[in-house]
Amino acid sequence: MERTRLVFSGSGGQGLVTAAIILAEAAIVHDGLNAVQTQSYGPAARGGATRADVIISNARINYPMVVQPNILVCLTQEAYNRYAATIRPGGLLMTDTRYVKIERKVDAQQRELPIYQTIMEKIGNPAVFNIAVLGALLGLRPLVSSASVMAAMGKRLPPAMSDINRQALQTGLAMTGTQQG
Amino acid sequence: MERTRLVFSGSGGQGLVTAAIILAEAAIVHDGLNAVQTQSYGPAARGGATRADVIISNARINYPMVVQPNILVCLTQEAYNRYAATIRPGGLLMTDTRYVKIERKVDAQQRELPIYQTIMEKIGNPAVFNIAVLGALLGLRPLVSSASVMAAMGKRLPPAMSDINRQALQTGLAMTGTQQG
Repeated sequence: MERTRLVFSGSGGQGLVTAAIILAEAAIVHDGLNAVQTQSYGPAARGGATRADVIISNARINYPMVVQPNILVCLTQEAYNRYAATIRPGGLLMTDTRYVKIERKVDAQQRELPIYQTIMEKIGNPAVFNIAVLGALLGLRPLVSSASVMAAMGKRLPPAMSDINRQALQTGLAMTGTQQG
Repeated sequence: MERTRLVFSGSGGQGLVTAAIILAEAAIVHDGLNAVQTQSYGPAARGGATRADVIISNARINYPMVVQPNILVCLTQEAYNRYAATIRPGGLLMTDTRYVKIERKVDAQQRELPIYQTIMEKIGNPAVFNIAVLGALLGLRPLVSSASVMAAMGKRLPPAMSDINRQALQTGLAMTGTQQG
């Protein structure tokens, strides 16, 4: 059984909930996996913090919360400070260089990527940052096919944005050195 | 401690995930409550079934899945057949007359509403069905203020649709005999 426990963490307005839903729907509808996607809002959310969890598995998923992620994406310093210590040994920690300064070593692969900066240079629209983050993640870990992500994006995102979202996904994938269909 | 355990059930394309996120975000950001919102996708999802859970509480929420909802919304016959028996005694079962034929009595308040038909007559756009469902629900159970829902809609829905969405929310609220600011 393979199981991916993923946490997107950052602030409201970065589009993490949307990214998580697109990933989960790509996994289930198009790639035939099981997935659970959760937003857990507590007092922290009122301060602007956002966290969206996705579990993807080829088997049944009973408990939907992620306690120790094997993939952790941190898009604010606060999110990094709060969650970095929870990562599973051998996991992947992905951060954006604009928002997070890495302050310690964790027992995981650490990838600091200038996703926000690249998106602003190449596309110039911060609204697609979340999709570029998803692309970069899929470049590092091919959890689902990019064709499936495109299909899920078509369902969840405004049609008027489809070209720019595809560009953002490809930009994210290309940043991590991966070419996908 | 008050705790609402709510399940929206129906089919893909009815906008249930969006309705659930708007409700949860209205609860947490604007009304100061705690909320957890979950999509659980299994083999059933591939057949077109969708289920989105929301738990709202004024206390901490530990387990995020709803096992026995006290509010159950069913928007397909299949969803009704699957979930009607899970409702808590004394709860609320809300169905849409276009999609669901009530086949048995449950120990709960049953409300069959022509939400889809009303939306098509008054607004003529099925894309806002989910918001009308949310409005009707809030007319029956004022879980969050409609001002909070409007604010959360502004964050989650396309700006071009804001007028028609507000209309849909008011139409839903009005169907259940409630006037809210």
